[in-house]
Amino acid sequence: MKELEYLAIINNTLSDSSFLGDDCAYLKEFDLCITQDTLVEGVHFLLETTDAFTLAQKAVNVNLSDIAAAGAKPLYITISLSLPKEIDKNFVEDFYQGVETVISKYGIKVAGGDLTGADKVYISICAIGKKYNDVGVSRTNANPGDIIVVTGTHGSSAGGLKLFAQKKSEPAVLIKKHLLPAARIEESRVIMQTAFECGVKNIAMMDSSDGLGDALYKLSTGCGYLFDIDFASVPVDEELKKTFPDEWKELLMWGGEDFELVFCVDKKVFEKLDKNKFFKIGTVSDRHITKEIAQKLNQEFENKSFKHF
Amino acid sequence: MKELEYLAIINNTLSDSSFLGDDCAYLKEFDLCITQDTLVEGVHFLLETTDAFTLAQKAVNVNLSDIAAAGAKPLYITISLSLPKEIDKNFVEDFYQGVETVISKYGIKVAGGDLTGADKVYISICAIGKKYNDVGVSRTNANPGDIIVVTGTHGSSAGGLKLFAQKKSEPAVLIKKHLLPAARIEESRVIMQTAFECGVKNIAMMDSSDGLGDALYKLSTGCGYLFDIDFASVPVDEELKKTFPDEWKELLMWGGEDFELVFCVDKKVFEKLDKNKFFKIGTVSDRHITKEIAQKLNQEFENKSFKHF
Repeated sequence: MKELEYLAIINNTLSDSSFLGDDCAYLKEFDLCITQDTLVEGVHFLLETTDAFTLAQKAVNVNLSDIAAAGAKPLYITISLSLPKEIDKNFVEDFYQGVETVISKYGIKVAGGDLTGADKVYISICAIGKKYNDVGVSRTNANPGDIIVVTGTHGSSAGGLKLFAQKKSEPAVLIKKHLLPAARIEESRVIMQTAFECGVKNIAMMDSSDGLGDALYKLSTGCGYLFDIDFASVPVDEELKKTFPDEWKELLMWGGEDFELVFCVDKKVFEKLDKNKFFKIGTVSDRHITKEIAQKLNQEFENKSFKHF
Repeated sequence: MKELEYLAIINNTLSDSSFLGDDCAYLKEFDLCITQDTLVEGVHFLLETTDAFTLAQKAVNVNLSDIAAAGAKPLYITISLSLPKEIDKNFVEDFYQGVETVISKYGIKVAGGDLTGADKVYISICAIGKKYNDVGVSRTNANPGDIIVVTGTHGSSAGGLKLFAQKKSEPAVLIKKHLLPAARIEESRVIMQTAFECGVKNIAMMDSSDGLGDALYKLSTGCGYLFDIDFASVPVDEELKKTFPDEWKELLMWGGEDFELVFCVDKKVFEKLDKNKFFKIGTVSDRHITKEIAQKLNQEFENKSFKHF
């Protein structure tokens, strides 16, 4: 079954699914954003290619990336860690040192969780953040004329994963982007502050955890307008091009796990952003997505989108 | 490795572990309680003895029980569900129907989560609740003279689990307590309201997810006073005694997963509680736990406490 089918089932089964659909749920009464993401051994990582210290940092960053994509400052995380009995005795300590490395950078606190047995390593983290200001953030907020922006290169993480499959450990830049992605927390704060200062009420934003193509698809169908993307302007690591001359375009668009921010903002917001950190890749058109286009896009998306199943 | 050793590692590794130790972390700035608990196939449940609809209800209740134990009203949950590829196609729908059954009863909303692949079924839920009032709730709050109270029978859930191991499905009352425990949400509200009305500032409370013995151990060592327990007064299901004449006392004390509340309150609070729903099982003594007693208790606890590893 495909991701969209599962989501449809969940939406249809719950009497209120209004909190689903964005990277985080926004709890208005508390002005808080909440998200939960899970990493499963054998699906999201292999213990042969990472270690507890590195893995913990990735697991925390995966969640912080969702908080960043919601325009919120991360404050608390809870951690559920499930481990096989035979796991190395230092795993828990190394893991929590990885957690501490990330959270101490941002002043985040661990507010509980649990530790259970399992046959594989499972890590499920819940993160809570507070909106920087009242600028609305959602996948559906893009408007015609908005500039489409990314915070960094895409495809590198998937390139790193591909290198592992080929038993290679170079180029290191690709491996590192896969094993140690960094949530764009500071960039999120800057975007939110700039939007606020420009008097903009809403921005469209998400992270590219499931690939740049996935993010663009969701932001475009979310607002109902087609996106004009200048693919040549999408930042890409030269090492990715060199290492995968035939596949880099596919990796760039559909690779996943780069954890960059992808957002659509009014031109006046983009103009104030540092062009060395925020890269324009296109414009939101004023052409509506018709039923026929929607079907075609859907097909394309289902065929190419990053899959955890 | 033992539970306490792992907790010591986590406490020592994190620079701030002040939020750990109770069923929920209390986030003072938001007046919110947060908890996360995970159920793993093969560790906490078997798909041969339950189904997605029932399992979902248990998974939600396990988390709501922590919220109840924190004296809070549950408001939101996030759900991370990991499933093997070959799982029955209706699993997700049945699971979310189980979720809906529980949350609709209490007005709780699902605020996100994720769905990933895995080799076993793995359910991690995070729950958020708001304190009913400013009566402090912690495992460390008991005082000499406090009445020790439970909200129901113990050992029944472990009895149900034992029946499964013996390939039996009767008595149904034990099986049901194991498969479909109900968080003591209404009881928590009543306790908190009564404590508030009596002008009591703090109560000691936790749930008996890891066994009555575990709860009493933690509440006693938490406050530093010995508990005088009248074991004959601990409510027990007659079916448990009949089915397991030689083992029921052990199950009663160390069985786990009954998800009752175990709490210590001032006598004046207990006097106002309905004696058909709240059962006195002992009194907090004024005898301090000495170093020697602590060591002995520790040993006892480590030997008998409910283990997920």
